[in-house]
Amino acid sequence: MAEWIGIGKRARRCYGFDEIALVPGSQTINPNEVNTSFEIAGLTFKVPILAAAMDGVTDVGFAIRMSQLGGIAVLNLDGVQTRYDNPDEVLKEIAKADSKKATKLVQAIYTKPIKERLIAKRINQIKSKKATAVVSCIPAHAQRFNQIAHENKADIFVVQSTVTTARHISSEYKTLDLFKFCRQSKIPVIIGNCVTYETTLELMETGCCGLLIGIGPGAACTTRGVLGIGVPQVTSTIDAAAARDFYYKRTGRYIPIITDGGMSRGGDICKAFASGADAVMVGSAFARAKEAPGRGYHWGMATSHENLPRGTRIYVGTTGTLQQILFGPANVDDGSQNLMGALRTSMGSLGVKDIKEMHDVEIIIAPSIQTEGKLFQVAQQVGMGK
Amino acid sequence: MAEWIGIGKRARRCYGFDEIALVPGSQTINPNEVNTSFEIAGLTFKVPILAAAMDGVTDVGFAIRMSQLGGIAVLNLDGVQTRYDNPDEVLKEIAKADSKKATKLVQAIYTKPIKERLIAKRINQIKSKKATAVVSCIPAHAQRFNQIAHENKADIFVVQSTVTTARHISSEYKTLDLFKFCRQSKIPVIIGNCVTYETTLELMETGCCGLLIGIGPGAACTTRGVLGIGVPQVTSTIDAAAARDFYYKRTGRYIPIITDGGMSRGGDICKAFASGADAVMVGSAFARAKEAPGRGYHWGMATSHENLPRGTRIYVGTTGTLQQILFGPANVDDGSQNLMGALRTSMGSLGVKDIKEMHDVEIIIAPSIQTEGKLFQVAQQVGMGK
Amino acid sequence: MAEWIGIGKRARRCYGFDEIALVPGSQTINPNEVNTSFEIAGLTFKVPILAAAMDGVTDVGFAIRMSQLGGIAVLNLDGVQTRYDNPDEVLKEIAKADSKKATKLVQAIYTKPIKERLIAKRINQIKSKKATAVVSCIPAHAQRFNQIAHENKADIFVVQSTVTTARHISSEYKTLDLFKFCRQSKIPVIIGNCVTYETTLELMETGCCGLLIGIGPGAACTTRGVLGIGVPQVTSTIDAAAARDFYYKRTGRYIPIITDGGMSRGGDICKAFASGADAVMVGSAFARAKEAPGRGYHWGMATSHENLPRGTRIYVGTTGTLQQILFGPANVDDGSQNLMGALRTSMGSLGVKDIKEMHDVEIIIAPSIQTEGKLFQVAQQVGMGK
Amino acid sequence: MAEWIGIGKRARRCYGFDEIALVPGSQTINPNEVNTSFEIAGLTFKVPILAAAMDGVTDVGFAIRMSQLGGIAVLNLDGVQTRYDNPDEVLKEIAKADSKKATKLVQAIYTKPIKERLIAKRINQIKSKKATAVVSCIPAHAQRFNQIAHENKADIFVVQSTVTTARHISSEYKTLDLFKFCRQSKIPVIIGNCVTYETTLELMETGCCGLLIGIGPGAACTTRGVLGIGVPQVTSTIDAAAARDFYYKRTGRYIPIITDGGMSRGGDICKAFASGADAVMVGSAFARAKEAPGRGYHWGMATSHENLPRGTRIYVGTTGTLQQILFGPANVDDGSQNLMGALRTSMGSLGVKDIKEMHDVEIIIAPSIQTEGKLFQVAQQVGMGK
Repeated sequence: MAEWIGIGKRARRCYGFDEIALVPGSQTINPNEVNTSFEIAGLTFKVPILAAAMDGVTDVGFAIRMSQLGGIAVLNLDGVQTRYDNPDEVLKEIAKADSKKATKLVQAIYTKPIKERLIAKRINQIKSKKATAVVSCIPAHAQRFNQIAHENKADIFVVQSTVTTARHISSEYKTLDLFKFCRQSKIPVIIGNCVTYETTLELMETGCCGLLIGIGPGAACTTRGVLGIGVPQVTSTIDAAAARDFYYKRTGRYIPIITDGGMSRGGDICKAFASGADAVMVGSAFARAKEAPGRGYHWGMATSHENLPRGTRIYVGTTGTLQQILFGPANVDDGSQNLMGALRTSMGSLGVKDIKEMHDVEIIIAPSIQTEGKLFQVAQQVGMGK
Repeated sequence: MAEWIGIGKRARRCYGFDEIALVPGSQTINPNEVNTSFEIAGLTFKVPILAAAMDGVTDVGFAIRMSQLGGIAVLNLDGVQTRYDNPDEVLKEIAKADSKKATKLVQAIYTKPIKERLIAKRINQIKSKKATAVVSCIPAHAQRFNQIAHENKADIFVVQSTVTTARHISSEYKTLDLFKFCRQSKIPVIIGNCVTYETTLELMETGCCGLLIGIGPGAACTTRGVLGIGVPQVTSTIDAAAARDFYYKRTGRYIPIITDGGMSRGGDICKAFASGADAVMVGSAFARAKEAPGRGYHWGMATSHENLPRGTRIYVGTTGTLQQILFGPANVDDGSQNLMGALRTSMGSLGVKDIKEMHDVEIIIAPSIQTEGKLFQVAQQVGMGK
Repeated sequence: MAEWIGIGKRARRCYGFDEIALVPGSQTINPNEVNTSFEIAGLTFKVPILAAAMDGVTDVGFAIRMSQLGGIAVLNLDGVQTRYDNPDEVLKEIAKADSKKATKLVQAIYTKPIKERLIAKRINQIKSKKATAVVSCIPAHAQRFNQIAHENKADIFVVQSTVTTARHISSEYKTLDLFKFCRQSKIPVIIGNCVTYETTLELMETGCCGLLIGIGPGAACTTRGVLGIGVPQVTSTIDAAAARDFYYKRTGRYIPIITDGGMSRGGDICKAFASGADAVMVGSAFARAKEAPGRGYHWGMATSHENLPRGTRIYVGTTGTLQQILFGPANVDDGSQNLMGALRTSMGSLGVKDIKEMHDVEIIIAPSIQTEGKLFQVAQQVGMGK
Repeated sequence: MAEWIGIGKRARRCYGFDEIALVPGSQTINPNEVNTSFEIAGLTFKVPILAAAMDGVTDVGFAIRMSQLGGIAVLNLDGVQTRYDNPDEVLKEIAKADSKKATKLVQAIYTKPIKERLIAKRINQIKSKKATAVVSCIPAHAQRFNQIAHENKADIFVVQSTVTTARHISSEYKTLDLFKFCRQSKIPVIIGNCVTYETTLELMETGCCGLLIGIGPGAACTTRGVLGIGVPQVTSTIDAAAARDFYYKRTGRYIPIITDGGMSRGGDICKAFASGADAVMVGSAFARAKEAPGRGYHWGMATSHENLPRGTRIYVGTTGTLQQILFGPANVDDGSQNLMGALRTSMGSLGVKDIKEMHDVEIIIAPSIQTEGKLFQVAQQVGMGK
């Protein structure tokens, strides 16, 4: 499993989505007859794809629509939605900004303080439409915001930072004790993000209802370039799934893992499930929805150090409605629409009837990097060819 | 053979054409004296390259010309040829469409119903010129169209879907029993596509006369990006060939395998034979023929889910006649013309006298990805250099 | 550790920064509470990042500023600073030169003789501001310049050539005996560059106070393309660190190793420390500082053969002050600014409290080459997209 | 050494120049004191780099100049030099041709018959200047042209085809018996090209004075794309060197191997020697000389099948005199000039005193593919950046 990378030092080879493919089984199933449902905290969702807690992706309207369509969109409590009475104006500004000034503008916008009454307001807006309200914040805000979320009847509370472990050491400030926090929270808690077997196992012992898996693999995430830290998603999901299965065997509690980051096409999502995910969290694919508040733009929340820039603003374009992105009909052919159709068709072709069976399909190592072909595509797009 | 890709999970490394090369033997043969012929269903063809059942590649005229030149072109019974009395008009429309609207247009065109009388007509048009008539449809249409094909004296019938296995499970509709179908068909049946040893072996037991090998490797095929499914062609061909050889040893019946997809140059075709193919099926290389109905365009039939878009329309250009593409003289130097000359020369250099001997030439792993060189080529094409 | 690359010949697989990533630990630490300090020759520096002895990076003003900020900038005694009374004019000329003529111009500028009085003057200019004066020259000049450096109270003397070993063989000229040189030098000596375990160990026995590790990996370094020589930095650092640790165990002397070359982003620097570096030396990242004399350009000193061109002049641009590059706030998001913030945040996420602990974090093999994504980025930059 | 690439089939991993690097030794040598000389057929050349028998590279004047500078340039007897009384006019035409028509034009030009008197004339022109005359032709012409070459006092005769083995099978024409041919030739014979241990050994038994190693690796060579055939040069050279050493051990005859193809920079040449080459043959690097008849263009002679196009005409530009390309001073910094300076400097850095010692330097596997960096370079060249 580990190779020598220098005298006295070995390293495991880890794998990402682009390096694997799934092998069809020896039977196939009618795609309409597969079961894609996902359970968490006693709730069942027919769409096992969560929209990320990113300001370019989820606002109140998006969360409601996602809920109507059978999934979950997580609302970010640390972003523009809770800093601005009228977040839409701010979002418009970001979308209009010159690409050279976007990073600075985003930095400036996020210095405005968070208003607690807006947290309550946003949750109430979602709940007033009978939608599932799942909200997210960083560990430093967790205790305060969790109380407000509970009072306003949020369904699930997410505590998320780039790298989360069961122990954070600081003498400067009081750190969040996740064990205590989960025990005291009156609503179920999802924790993220982590990647290793050991940390997954330790975090499961906090009493959380789910874990977000993924550090450093996403397109809008600068973690790996800036910090050198990151684990490719296939390996991190397989490792976390191994921890989940071990924890389940030992305790009888099945705590779902949600692969978060690095998936933009249907194929990537299918591979995450084959790697062991119970659900996936997606950012950029949803940023392309007409309903997305980012207006075709998308920016990461990564790297908490105040002087490190937040993730790049990326132009992803607006390609269709959220319904099209989830259920089709696809009007683009790059695999970024009809994600549920892709998942169903994939499950049918693989001959598996539910997500649990997806965990056992055969994976092969098959690099998709066909440099020559890709280069010609780029060349064509850049100006040559037809 | 398998490497660890995470805790408790292993995966085989599979290989594609770009990752291998063939090693010259210790003797060489005059290319004019090698035998390239291919046998299927009792028929012998001197050209072991089939033209794919794609609407941009094969129409009646193309099938006739291909037959005259010694090969087979498969006519798609689910496409424009059987939906339109005058398919040429529709094909012209697709070729003229703006590239942004092409996917939608193709989708619209394929909603028109198939007319059974056109199936009969097309087969008769081919047979009237004493050409080999090989026709293809999806499993759902197989029983009905097979009858018509037989009545009109088609030579071979192809049942093709993205992923085919010996068992398809559905409670919504009646599935095609391939065992029964092959037994009842009065003309020989080719089945496709499959990729694994197990499925190849099971499908050989249906009584088919040949199998198409290949899922997810082709340039116009969105299977891998959208569904995550795919096996690189070198490994899938080697595996299928192992199944064929085992089946032959056990039963004495030699059922040829036809590698389908992912080959655009002579070198790729030679590698497919070295991997164990008895014949190959090619799409885009033939879409570049003057005789091709696609007028320099080419689009896939992949992904059967109604809301997933059919394969991208790709511009391949028109580079020469079918005769040039098969036998030269080549007037381009990218390996896409004179495919038979390339095969003969390759066989000569490898010192093998027929396709069977090609199955035993030495293969090496030798990635062709020379990023630097390729990048400079692209840079030059895009506008710099001379 | 070694693979067959031909009959009878094996080769080790070596790794570079782009091929690895760091794995978060099972605890995290407040980034403000980690210790980044680096000790060499009895001096302690809070910034373990040295600015390279390159004319586009370090001049007197830059060395003073770097010292004020807690680090070291090495002044090149073989370059324009000691050849020209007014080096700034020459540097302006290089920056203004047409890109086709730059190599020739650089070659011409470096033919002017070195003036010893300028060596004294530059060191005095640095020391007059109470800054650390670290100066560098090639082996042929070492004995002469070392004397001048000592007389003018330089703090550390660096002897640097592309490839340095404990033995250089020549009958044409007198070679520098590094053992004798280090013994006789009255100021501490850093030697570079080397890459193997054996040479690191031998050079540590000279009595030097530090070693520069790195041959052939840098962006402005033509060593690998022209000479075929080079070892990727992760493996060379791990190997050198193994020699350092062995030497320390045997002698009780801890001689720091400084990884030099190939790092342009915070992530690369973090990976160098994880590979075993005590400090790193950086060129192009500092060439982007407003204070850098290269005015946004940068050129290597590589390949000592008189007829081989000096390293390419590369345009890197000017992106911010030295303070921003070291401590932020970053106004670009490519990881080239706030290097110390990145290091602190990385150490916090990895749960290590000082550089020594960085040497033990888990490394994985995780190729960062995501060709498809990168290609689209390039395509966008070149002109498409938004 | 071999990996599974499918069920029941293994393949060796072979390596090319871009995948390896050389490791500095534990001593270094003054580059002026290394010995680069190469012996063949009793003659000694101080430049172990041969200019290829390509019409864009070698004509009479070039051969004379190369000889004066200490090397060998091989004159192609099957090309324009022996088909045209005034080859320069034809070469001008090729250089001026529109890039779309170049392949067709080259094909047309090579249909003109070869005149035997021109063979004699060209050799005499070379010999009249006391230069070494080495001439080359294909096997079909070998017996006839060898006689003429001998009568006109050529020094060495080269029989070259894309793939050469000790046995060629044909009933259509009489094949060249290389054993008989070498025995009967009154001048020493070099044979090429081959790549495997077995064929190298068999060809050494013909009595030849040297072998050309390399099939399918060169930039102007379409062998691999069109025929699927090729072995990367590091592995093919190591294998051939193993055969040479075995043959020497058994017979006491040391038959030099000349690595031919795929080297464009000094670093590649150094790696070929480290892989075991006694000399190298270079095409495109010499096509860039002012003295080269191709006027900045270069085209391959590959693929003998009459309907397969000859190698692509490639624009390489004219960058300096042959003297500059061999001995500098380099005025470009891409490693394509001062090849001998690069070789000497590399040998010095590696601490080896002659070519034989180069065969034992340590090789590492170290992919040079740094896609990201390269992509940015291309992006810059294509139009962005400065």
